[in-house]
Amino acid sequence: MLTLSLIGIGCGDPGQLTRAAVAAINAADFVLIPRKGSAKSDLADLRRTICADVLSNQATRIAEFDLPVRDAAEADYRKGVDDWHDAVAASWSRTIADRLGSEGKVALLIWGDPSLYDSSLRIARRLNPLPHIEVIPGITSIQALCAAHALPLNDIGEPFLVTTGRRLREGGWPSGVDTVVVMLDGGTAFQSLDPEGLQIWWGAYLGMPDQIVMSGVLAEVGPHIVAMRQEARERHGWIMDSYILKRRP
Amino acid sequence: MLTLSLIGIGCGDPGQLTRAAVAAINAADFVLIPRKGSAKSDLADLRRTICADVLSNQATRIAEFDLPVRDAAEADYRKGVDDWHDAVAASWSRTIADRLGSEGKVALLIWGDPSLYDSSLRIARRLNPLPHIEVIPGITSIQALCAAHALPLNDIGEPFLVTTGRRLREGGWPSGVDTVVVMLDGGTAFQSLDPEGLQIWWGAYLGMPDQIVMSGVLAEVGPHIVAMRQEARERHGWIMDSYILKRRP
Repeated sequence: MLTLSLIGIGCGDPGQLTRAAVAAINAADFVLIPRKGSAKSDLADLRRTICADVLSNQATRIAEFDLPVRDAAEADYRKGVDDWHDAVAASWSRTIADRLGSEGKVALLIWGDPSLYDSSLRIARRLNPLPHIEVIPGITSIQALCAAHALPLNDIGEPFLVTTGRRLREGGWPSGVDTVVVMLDGGTAFQSLDPEGLQIWWGAYLGMPDQIVMSGVLAEVGPHIVAMRQEARERHGWIMDSYILKRRP
Repeated sequence: MLTLSLIGIGCGDPGQLTRAAVAAINAADFVLIPRKGSAKSDLADLRRTICADVLSNQATRIAEFDLPVRDAAEADYRKGVDDWHDAVAASWSRTIADRLGSEGKVALLIWGDPSLYDSSLRIARRLNPLPHIEVIPGITSIQALCAAHALPLNDIGEPFLVTTGRRLREGGWPSGVDTVVVMLDGGTAFQSLDPEGLQIWWGAYLGMPDQIVMSGVLAEVGPHIVAMRQEARERHGWIMDSYILKRRP
C-alpha cells in the first residue's frame, strides 16, 4: 500500500511549519522535491532548507525531480491545466515507481495549504495506482497577510469572498460582500476597480525574509503598491502577492 | 512596553501548533487562559494541555482568569457584541496590570487563527494602555475540514465564499459562487436550502479526538448529519461544526 502525504509547509517562514508537518516529513520514506525552473528556484530552496532543518529520520530520503511545464500556448485555459495535471501525475507516478515501488510513504511539501489554490490534490487523484492520500494543513498566504497587518479578515458575523485577480478584473466588485481576498493575481487587478470607499491590505513574499506589506486607502496607496510590486518583481525575478480589499458597508 | 501575542493554536489537535506558536508561547512572561464556564471547559483544558506540552521556559507563568459572559438578552446583536468586547478588554487590562504591570509579553492562545471569526484582535485594540500586537497564524477549522476530507476548497481558478449559518439561512445560496464555507452555524442552516445539485462536506470537533466527518449528496446525507449533530451535541454538552457546500456549476 502506498500513502501520499501532502504536507502544507506554510508560505515561506519555516516557523509556520506545524508539529504535524514535521512528524509527517519524518514519517516519509521519500520526500519528493519538484524542480520548477530557475524562476521558482527560491521555492525549491526553501523546501530543501526545511528538510535539512527538520529531518531527523536517517531513513528518509530526498528525491528531486523535474516537473513538466504547463503549455502556456494552449488557448483553452482549462484544457491546458488538465493536460498539465495529467503530465505531472505521470511524472509523480514514474518517480514514485522508480524510487519506492508500490509500498511505503511519499511526502510532497506543498506551499501554503494543499486545499487552497493548489493542484496537488487533483493531481494525486490521477496517480496510477491510486495511493492513500493524507493531507496536513499549512498556514496560507491569506493568514500570513492578516497576521502581518494584525487584521481581522471578516467583519463581525459577516461573510468574505476569496477570489482571483482574473475574476476581479472581469467581474468587478462581487455582489453581497464587503471583504474580498484576491489571490493568484498576475497583475494588479485592483486597478480595474473604482477605488472610492475601498481600503487595501497588500503583501508580497509573505512569511519570507523579503516580505513587503502596505495598507491604506486604495486611492492613495494603490499607485505605490503598483510601483513597489514592479520594482520588487524585477529585483527578485518573480513575485507572489495577495491582498484584501474592504468596502465601507 | 507591553506586547500582546495572539497565538493561533489550531482547532484541537496539538499537532497543528506551528513552530512559531511554540516559540511565542515560550517567549511570553505570561500566558493568559480564559475560563469560559463549564460548557467550554474542554477548550480551556486543551489550552492547559498545550502549555504543559510545549512550555520549556521556566520563567513563563500561566494565569487563568474569568471571562465575562455576553449578554444574550441584549436584543441588538451588534450592541451586545460591542458591550461584551468592552467588558472582555477591561478584564484583560485588569489581569495584565495585576500580573505583569506595564512591561513584558503576554500571550493568549487563540482557537484556530486570530484573524478568522475571532474577537481577540478587536478586543486587543480596546486595551488601555494599547499594547504592541503580534499575531501568530494558526490552522483553522476550514483547513482541518478540507484536510479530513482531502478536499480542494476552491475549484480551479474559481472563487469561494466564507459565511455564517445565520447569513445562509437569511439569504439563501449566495450569488456568484459555487463553493460556500459555513462557519458559526448554531443549527443546521443547510436545511433551509433546496438541496438539488448540492454536495456537502461536514465536520464537527475537527482536529480533536472526537472528530466526526460526513460527506455526500446533500439530499441524502443532510438528514443523517442533522441526527448525528444532535446526538453528538447531547453527548458532549457542546458542538463546534462547520461545512462546505458545492453546487454543480
